[in-house]
Amino acid sequence: MSIQVTTLDNGFRVVTDVIDTVETAAVGVWVGVGARHEKKEINGVAHLLEHMAFKGTERRSARAIAEEIESVGGHLNAFTSRENTAYFARVLKDDVPLAVDILADILQNSTFEAGELERERAVIIQEIGQASDTPEDVVFDRFQETAYPGQPLGRPILGSAENVGAMSREVIAGYMRENYAAPTMVLAASGRVEHDALVTIAEDAFGGLPTNGGPNRAPARYRGGDVFESRELEQVHLVLGFDGVPFKDDDYFTLSVLSNLLGGGMSSRLFQEIREKRGLVYSIYSFTASYADGGLFGVYAGTGEKQVEELLPVMCEEIAKVGASIGEDELARVKAQLKAGILMALESTSARLERIGSHMLVYGRVLDVAEVVDAIEAVDAKAIARMAARLMASRPTFAALGPVGRLEAMGSLAERFA
Amino acid sequence: MSIQVTTLDNGFRVVTDVIDTVETAAVGVWVGVGARHEKKEINGVAHLLEHMAFKGTERRSARAIAEEIESVGGHLNAFTSRENTAYFARVLKDDVPLAVDILADILQNSTFEAGELERERAVIIQEIGQASDTPEDVVFDRFQETAYPGQPLGRPILGSAENVGAMSREVIAGYMRENYAAPTMVLAASGRVEHDALVTIAEDAFGGLPTNGGPNRAPARYRGGDVFESRELEQVHLVLGFDGVPFKDDDYFTLSVLSNLLGGGMSSRLFQEIREKRGLVYSIYSFTASYADGGLFGVYAGTGEKQVEELLPVMCEEIAKVGASIGEDELARVKAQLKAGILMALESTSARLERIGSHMLVYGRVLDVAEVVDAIEAVDAKAIARMAARLMASRPTFAALGPVGRLEAMGSLAERFA
Repeated sequence: MSIQVTTLDNGFRVVTDVIDTVETAAVGVWVGVGARHEKKEINGVAHLLEHMAFKGTERRSARAIAEEIESVGGHLNAFTSRENTAYFARVLKDDVPLAVDILADILQNSTFEAGELERERAVIIQEIGQASDTPEDVVFDRFQETAYPGQPLGRPILGSAENVGAMSREVIAGYMRENYAAPTMVLAASGRVEHDALVTIAEDAFGGLPTNGGPNRAPARYRGGDVFESRELEQVHLVLGFDGVPFKDDDYFTLSVLSNLLGGGMSSRLFQEIREKRGLVYSIYSFTASYADGGLFGVYAGTGEKQVEELLPVMCEEIAKVGASIGEDELARVKAQLKAGILMALESTSARLERIGSHMLVYGRVLDVAEVVDAIEAVDAKAIARMAARLMASRPTFAALGPVGRLEAMGSLAERFA
Repeated sequence: MSIQVTTLDNGFRVVTDVIDTVETAAVGVWVGVGARHEKKEINGVAHLLEHMAFKGTERRSARAIAEEIESVGGHLNAFTSRENTAYFARVLKDDVPLAVDILADILQNSTFEAGELERERAVIIQEIGQASDTPEDVVFDRFQETAYPGQPLGRPILGSAENVGAMSREVIAGYMRENYAAPTMVLAASGRVEHDALVTIAEDAFGGLPTNGGPNRAPARYRGGDVFESRELEQVHLVLGFDGVPFKDDDYFTLSVLSNLLGGGMSSRLFQEIREKRGLVYSIYSFTASYADGGLFGVYAGTGEKQVEELLPVMCEEIAKVGASIGEDELARVKAQLKAGILMALESTSARLERIGSHMLVYGRVLDVAEVVDAIEAVDAKAIARMAARLMASRPTFAALGPVGRLEAMGSLAERFA
């Protein structure tokens, strides 16, 4: 691994991960602000701002932004998560300076022109409609709201159609001024790039960013509870979860191993017990999410209206006993999967960009691959049992969408873990 | 590129694409049979067989298959398309022999045990339920049925719950015996592999496959027409398309350029006109599908119930005029995108596996990257105009799902292209 980091005078950081064997690069700006850094009345602004960044600057129209990058065969994209917003490009190696120029322009000189804003509101309202037609998206939003009720961390990233329709140009520009500051922004590049050359470009392009500012956040206060939403669907889509761990928790990798052991692959306990032995689902998997000061762990399953009565008790039992009687073979297998997964991800220029960009924001440095592998190796059955007990000590969060009648009749989830 | 091909005595082919700079490999068996090689009463059997291949052999239980590959950090997967079925593994470089041993075993010694079959039927019925809750999946299935009505090529890959619930062990085993023959199967590997070593392994592992057999197909007879399905959704999900081109058509790459020019990226005509200028959608894109003897071209869009009245005429107009007044800049930009996309895909071990496996089945060889780039370069405005006229000469296929009342009231799509 060939990671290099340089910090400019204003606190803006440049990180590169050079891969000499490819002919392309991935380059992006990671910003440490997202949907959790929003007051209720402006929920959705981080995502609306991410969209508006592509809608024209003092130098470039929206169309010119799209055409400039695509005329060299590149492409631009962006995403907003609960703690980050990222803007990135995939380009051939010679076009890295162009990509950085465009990224710097859209992040510092966007005009948020009135007509463009009106049209982009309409686009996001369609995006909200599309998400609302996707059961998995809806049930995860309900899950998040129930885990963190009445808090920014529990609100949907897209915001509501009402908010998106109402937020003014000044609200968007003000949010950017407050939160897009040099110390919370990282220019990251992976692939065929040169660190020193990129730093020189970055000094010009991002050296003028303000040093003050950056996001404030309300603390994550996990609560839990049940939410059922009846909808005419073939399947009941359900998510059951618990209070998890923040990024820097000592048991961050313990939870990662626990999660994969429970629902990570074809040989995982949930897949074997619920799909292979009982035929109750097509999809079942566990997941983790981490934040600066909290996190979530959970399981998603989609099953039929009738099958849910058999599925739920078995799923709860597998979760409840995950810390008990862990076999050596099983533990070795999960570690092998995680380690091989890391190696395979290193083959992807885009995955390496994502890795270095997010690590800089979370840890202030990029974790060594060897360090991560060692941390995974160090997880033992005792640590998993401890982590499991910690999960189960929180009140469960349970969200279900679809034909939920039989589920509601089964009573409270919390009691099953009491 | 370092492609090598060897044909065994029984006609089974081995193809490798060595990448010396990685530590892993992707290896799989591509079989030239899929959902279009099914009679009506056994629609779904190719996909059911693909699932049953993982459910146990004479030597290995279903659980052993999952555990063996995952204990070395690898993973197994498979897919069924209309003309192909593929089984593949991602592993570290030293585990290629194990992956091939498992692939050879599940493709020649599967037992299709009765209890496993009953459970797997239930899993696929859940998969059908999940697809039915995904509007984009449903509208594409309706589109395919309407393009090829009453033909195997028009039927859903998953089949119906009735068929999946009813097909016997003998039907599945018989389908495999008839269609899985050496000359229609390819062992493909990309990444850190050695061609000669793989051939030696393959002689042992696949040398006993029968030389006779292979799938029969009914010819693709494109028809077109309209289908509307009313469902309570936020968006109308719609697909509008035309008769396209088979893989070996002289204008295969012409259609690829046309499709990207119309709806391939942020600078494409549909994205600019319908999302950027009018704010009518979040998602709009064009696509192509090719088969041995036919193909499809189309556009997907998701929009609101009210917006559909503005969207449909504009979308039709953009499609109708795609062959006219193509700018040189525009054409150069689309070619640059396609060429860069090829380069970027070459960085992915999995994408290279998919490429060589499918090329061997379609062309009997792997197309050179330079050859593909030349073919893209050769496409000019005249060829696109010719291709557009050819598309428009077919009767349109139009599928819509959601609140479709206003759409239905707008009359026949065919007349708009008359």
